[in-house]
Amino acid sequence: MKNKKNLKLKIAVIGLGYWGPNLLRNLSNIKSAEVVYACDLLEENLNKISKSYPSINLTKDFNIILKDKSVDVIVIATPLSTHYSLAKQALFFGKHVLLEKPMTKTSKEAKDLIKLAKQKKKMLMIGYTFVYSEAVKKIKEEIDKKTFGKIYYYDSTRINLGLLQKDINVIWDLACHDFSIINFLFNKNPLYVEASASRFVGKDQEEVADLIITYENNIKVHISVSWLSPVKIRQILIGGSKKMIVFNDTEPSEKVKIYNKTVEFSKSSVTPFTPFYRSGDILIPNISQKESLQNELEHLIYCIQNNIQPITNGEEGLKIVKLLEASDLSLKNNSRVRI
Amino acid sequence: MKNKKNLKLKIAVIGLGYWGPNLLRNLSNIKSAEVVYACDLLEENLNKISKSYPSINLTKDFNIILKDKSVDVIVIATPLSTHYSLAKQALFFGKHVLLEKPMTKTSKEAKDLIKLAKQKKKMLMIGYTFVYSEAVKKIKEEIDKKTFGKIYYYDSTRINLGLLQKDINVIWDLACHDFSIINFLFNKNPLYVEASASRFVGKDQEEVADLIITYENNIKVHISVSWLSPVKIRQILIGGSKKMIVFNDTEPSEKVKIYNKTVEFSKSSVTPFTPFYRSGDILIPNISQKESLQNELEHLIYCIQNNIQPITNGEEGLKIVKLLEASDLSLKNNSRVRI
Amino acid sequence: MKNKKNLKLKIAVIGLGYWGPNLLRNLSNIKSAEVVYACDLLEENLNKISKSYPSINLTKDFNIILKDKSVDVIVIATPLSTHYSLAKQALFFGKHVLLEKPMTKTSKEAKDLIKLAKQKKKMLMIGYTFVYSEAVKKIKEEIDKKTFGKIYYYDSTRINLGLLQKDINVIWDLACHDFSIINFLFNKNPLYVEASASRFVGKDQEEVADLIITYENNIKVHISVSWLSPVKIRQILIGGSKKMIVFNDTEPSEKVKIYNKTVEFSKSSVTPFTPFYRSGDILIPNISQKESLQNELEHLIYCIQNNIQPITNGEEGLKIVKLLEASDLSLKNNSRVRI
Amino acid sequence: MKNKKNLKLKIAVIGLGYWGPNLLRNLSNIKSAEVVYACDLLEENLNKISKSYPSINLTKDFNIILKDKSVDVIVIATPLSTHYSLAKQALFFGKHVLLEKPMTKTSKEAKDLIKLAKQKKKMLMIGYTFVYSEAVKKIKEEIDKKTFGKIYYYDSTRINLGLLQKDINVIWDLACHDFSIINFLFNKNPLYVEASASRFVGKDQEEVADLIITYENNIKVHISVSWLSPVKIRQILIGGSKKMIVFNDTEPSEKVKIYNKTVEFSKSSVTPFTPFYRSGDILIPNISQKESLQNELEHLIYCIQNNIQPITNGEEGLKIVKLLEASDLSLKNNSRVRI
Repeated sequence: MKNKKNLKLKIAVIGLGYWGPNLLRNLSNIKSAEVVYACDLLEENLNKISKSYPSINLTKDFNIILKDKSVDVIVIATPLSTHYSLAKQALFFGKHVLLEKPMTKTSKEAKDLIKLAKQKKKMLMIGYTFVYSEAVKKIKEEIDKKTFGKIYYYDSTRINLGLLQKDINVIWDLACHDFSIINFLFNKNPLYVEASASRFVGKDQEEVADLIITYENNIKVHISVSWLSPVKIRQILIGGSKKMIVFNDTEPSEKVKIYNKTVEFSKSSVTPFTPFYRSGDILIPNISQKESLQNELEHLIYCIQNNIQPITNGEEGLKIVKLLEASDLSLKNNSRVRI
Repeated sequence: MKNKKNLKLKIAVIGLGYWGPNLLRNLSNIKSAEVVYACDLLEENLNKISKSYPSINLTKDFNIILKDKSVDVIVIATPLSTHYSLAKQALFFGKHVLLEKPMTKTSKEAKDLIKLAKQKKKMLMIGYTFVYSEAVKKIKEEIDKKTFGKIYYYDSTRINLGLLQKDINVIWDLACHDFSIINFLFNKNPLYVEASASRFVGKDQEEVADLIITYENNIKVHISVSWLSPVKIRQILIGGSKKMIVFNDTEPSEKVKIYNKTVEFSKSSVTPFTPFYRSGDILIPNISQKESLQNELEHLIYCIQNNIQPITNGEEGLKIVKLLEASDLSLKNNSRVRI
Repeated sequence: MKNKKNLKLKIAVIGLGYWGPNLLRNLSNIKSAEVVYACDLLEENLNKISKSYPSINLTKDFNIILKDKSVDVIVIATPLSTHYSLAKQALFFGKHVLLEKPMTKTSKEAKDLIKLAKQKKKMLMIGYTFVYSEAVKKIKEEIDKKTFGKIYYYDSTRINLGLLQKDINVIWDLACHDFSIINFLFNKNPLYVEASASRFVGKDQEEVADLIITYENNIKVHISVSWLSPVKIRQILIGGSKKMIVFNDTEPSEKVKIYNKTVEFSKSSVTPFTPFYRSGDILIPNISQKESLQNELEHLIYCIQNNIQPITNGEEGLKIVKLLEASDLSLKNNSRVRI
Repeated sequence: MKNKKNLKLKIAVIGLGYWGPNLLRNLSNIKSAEVVYACDLLEENLNKISKSYPSINLTKDFNIILKDKSVDVIVIATPLSTHYSLAKQALFFGKHVLLEKPMTKTSKEAKDLIKLAKQKKKMLMIGYTFVYSEAVKKIKEEIDKKTFGKIYYYDSTRINLGLLQKDINVIWDLACHDFSIINFLFNKNPLYVEASASRFVGKDQEEVADLIITYENNIKVHISVSWLSPVKIRQILIGGSKKMIVFNDTEPSEKVKIYNKTVEFSKSSVTPFTPFYRSGDILIPNISQKESLQNELEHLIYCIQNNIQPITNGEEGLKIVKLLEASDLSLKNNSRVRI
């Protein structure tokens, strides 16, 4: 492995739709990596890339990449329905895999991939970018200081006039980000999920949804997601018994505010317990402007070079697929589902 | 009745806690009304009033007011648990009643009051102030133009670091405002309600809640209410197939924005249906700064003088109590409730 | 004086236009004061008051008040042109005086009043409310900690679609607030003023103006004031070599932000000096919601009872009148004026 | 020329610091143009480019480009001090020139370049990007509708914690944008300028400045620019006798608001003239998200291909240099300068 460290990892990027070009741009800033292939079934997407990255081999044929032994890593940014098959082949051919979120359509597929990655001793990382964002890292830091007291709730709103998707609903598209952030911040398991969703414009996929999830330690999670909102909101509130946080991701700067503000029952007074409103200062921590995807890709390369598991590994991806399946079940049954 | 029009209506205000002083202040601007009594059990609350309104008779004894035949209207702004008993006595003694929201603790009590008001031929109005706000009136105007196409959803967020209440939970405290606004705007009945709520700080009343309600015509309603949010949000989104509205009540001006912006399936193209994103101008209508409570109280006086039913009459109040009961049942059963 | 402390100070309020009712409302909350007279030349303004304050003697005749020996304090909230004459009479008759801002039309008049107050041993306070606001007090606290390094600039924007005034221009109306805040915060003298202003709608008074003032220690002040802006902005930026402040007075909460953010020249590196951008945390201090005018009036009463000079005494008022005169001169001469 | 239209214009970009890469990225989207050279004196800047644009010839030697007859256009994005010399050589060698703003250090230099471009029959365009922004184009459209009545003022604030520049002051860096926007919107000449500025951190260049400029038709312009503000503001207010505009360029969307809100003197009432406050609806027009620089570069190519003068031609550039010189003179003399 030592030699490997000094060599550039050879990377192939599969899928050049919306996200692929972002992967290429950020990978081009990493010195120890080199994109050697870019693959897409559409001529048009390949052409789009050819101007800016003339040194990358463009192909419609995934097999060429699989068979090229010089390729170390395959980054898969294709529609969900193709994730399992592409990742399976990549691992089978001995490539490390970065698979975009959500991981797979079913937990069975996810387990298969995890197993195969173990057998092949290859890395399987899932592209949950938010976990690598400077803002979420800062929030994690604050929560780990244990100054929030008991965590009461996590409330997220991800709404805008978004692209209606054909192969996944708005929960699979947007709420999965929150599932990954919650796992990262609190490291607790979900116990119950209750989903409610609607299709208004299209027929196939839910466009607006609300989720209520109870995690261990009675952390209550509410997530509102929508492709049909006139305004764009990306806001997470985290309430604790001693502090609270607001993370507003549409703010250009000043994204995270830490409130020294909450309600407590004063235990000094004997009876009756009356609430005490604490209303202290608010801190807006300085947060680096570094792009989340850059952090994620550096983590990918670092983990491969040092043979360690990434934060968002296959197991994390599987946990999230299970929660998405439970959400689907709750929608189907119109009732709360125990996970 | 004609003569009555020229006379000042004599009013008694019961309950001088948080809301009572607002009632007094707004009533003092109405020429055809005169507050003759103010009543509260706490000396302290009476004293608070005495300086500013020295001409009003202050009393702790509700009976004096009941027995004073010159009193035309009793305005009740006391805790919920006392609503039924006070309103019943007032009607029984032949007074018109403005009862603060929510109307009563149970729908049985609400029905009783409605019946009694009919028997006594007295007005029973419930204080759902939002219905009288200039912003909601403007939104109603816009929706009545029928330019919104099909109404998809109504999504409301009412959260802040609020006073924890002892006798009602956060749904009864805050979500009932949305119930009244929805009735006013759409005039549809609720079919199903699904509530989810938590107690974090106290033991008695839910402090954070989410409601999903399906109304006739498949209008989907989501309401988020909380007494435990570090930030104050008062925002309603209304999504239609042709237009959308954002009502942000914490904005000092520019509260209502009408978006000519939505997603449609273009029916011109044959197959497959692909969505069409309309992104037109946004209109911020000019809205009068007149206080909602002033409008409400003028409506009260006008309805009494002209012997007509107020917009938020007892029947409206009952509808809302039924929905609150259904929410409680949903919370208790952890499941969706048919109304 | 000891006895006096226990007695209520008897107060007369002169002028019941826009500001007078605010004075009455806040005075009614002070236990050691009692408003005994309210005076205005317009019947309509007196009537407006009579309902809410029936115990106050209403009069159009200022002389009655002057001659009533029980009156301790006269609060003058009339148009500027009447300030001098009314205050002079009040002092002459041995009353303490709170005079609304700006103090007088000329510095000569201001000096006269100061002299008379001294002779009569009565208090002369000028109503520069901002100095008593919780936000400005918090900013003063921060600046007095000496952690801002060298103060570079004070930049204020006070613009909105305001009432065009007939007897004073927009500088006398709005910029004088900044003059008082600057005196309070920095305690430095102005050296030069450069004013520029326009009349667009009316003929008599400038409606839009910009001022550039150089204070001692090379503190640069820029003030933008306007009655003709479509949006309301009330924002002060204070830049120091180590910290900076933004005070946004239209925010309902979170009015003051302290930025640990600035540019410095790193002195460690030898040549050439290159700037160093410090971009640290931002602090939003918790600030009491107490009304500025309440603080101001409590200060008035406290200073009278304890026979001490108020922060915004006659001398302070005079300094501001001098600066307003210098601004007028700069406008007239189209050039910078040495003060 | 017909043939030329079908051929790709060959372009060289000089200067690969902050702006150069933006030029390259946007030029790469234009089908009828091809960047063939990129030039910079720093190895590091050339390397930065080489990865993303491997097909472009990189060089430190400007002469190679001048002598290559296949090069049609030279785009100059170097420090101001080099503008004159580089543009002069480029024109001399028969190249079209896009020169970044500000055009030159002196109006004499600007006139030389204009003359040379005429002699050589080559295009000389100055890179005033704002004129090509979708927002400014929309504002121009609105103003050209003649529904604003008389234009009263243009008030701009461009402040943030910016890079201190060594070869130009904050007026040359930021206020020149407003000069170009004003020329574009109103097409009036400046009559007087009054500048005021300060150096706080550095010794060479003013970091904070205010400008008051009177244009023909008594349009009053105020511009605040600063490299030392803790917050970033990019806001233009335009006040007219019938409508007003706010352009807030830091908003991600909803950048332009048109206010049907102003003050007028009602001429119906005889005496005295009293102002009338109009407070109508606000319109937020839908504005394309297209990048300004893309528009600018398409305009460049279009003008060359069709042999027409660009909006921001040399004459426009010269006007702005003259105004910058007048600002410098006003700073030096501490007085108003007639232009």
